[in-house]
Amino acid sequence: MQRALNEARKAAECGEVPVGAVVTDGAGAVLATASNAVEARHDATAHAELLALRAAAARRGEKYLVDCTLTVTLEPCPLCAAAIALFRIKRLVFGAYDPKSGGVEHGPRVFDHATCHHRPEVIGGVDERESAAILRDFFENRRDPANSAGR
Amino acid sequence: MQRALNEARKAAECGEVPVGAVVTDGAGAVLATASNAVEARHDATAHAELLALRAAAARRGEKYLVDCTLTVTLEPCPLCAAAIALFRIKRLVFGAYDPKSGGVEHGPRVFDHATCHHRPEVIGGVDERESAAILRDFFENRRDPANSAGR
Repeated sequence: MQRALNEARKAAECGEVPVGAVVTDGAGAVLATASNAVEARHDATAHAELLALRAAAARRGEKYLVDCTLTVTLEPCPLCAAAIALFRIKRLVFGAYDPKSGGVEHGPRVFDHATCHHRPEVIGGVDERESAAILRDFFENRRDPANSAGR
Repeated sequence: MQRALNEARKAAECGEVPVGAVVTDGAGAVLATASNAVEARHDATAHAELLALRAAAARRGEKYLVDCTLTVTLEPCPLCAAAIALFRIKRLVFGAYDPKSGGVEHGPRVFDHATCHHRPEVIGGVDERESAAILRDFFENRRDPANSAGR
């Protein structure tokens, strides 16, 4: 989680909503890390999780990551939750819960439907305070409170 | 929809689950087209919709596509439904309904939650028979019926 938190801090330094993600393999080796990059890439789907998952799969040249863990500082949104299922990730570890935009424990609860063909082990709330504090500090430093919805 | 169907046929020719997508702007001009490319890219998230949306946003250099229509041959899965909301697409037009893996009218119904911050106009069932026939023909030609779940 500390690697993911470092990625989140990097995002904040670039003016991106601070979310960071890491993909590790079955032996615990880091396959990919990523920061949220929606602004830099002009891509509303350039979330840390999706970038890290795609990078890990590209590194391996495989479309599934069945032995892997995704660690991310914030509860994934529906996009990233669905990507986690599609890549058949073994374990999801996340930091802060996200009642506003989350898709795992909130809203559509993507894994909790028969249409979801793979459900990872889910561990939420790891280093929750630190993960949430990075986000809170970022939004408190922004002038327009309306910017706080989504990434 | 005929452009999207042509993209779906291209996918089938490449051994990809035949789904095609087109993004058009407010004036009806085509911004991007894409075929499902999960196998070729070794990327479980390389769905036609997500590829077309990212290409359209990249072409414009903008993170939102507020005036645009996404036309796709199959009901989007939760990943693509969430991407449609994130890109703030104005209108979604799709062909066949997908009770097995769909995320708009089935399963998590991504747009139907307060955590979804943008809901497009949704028109389903356009050229439904033709869209479904391309998928059915593809799976009937594959040896292993277990391959028919997801892309």
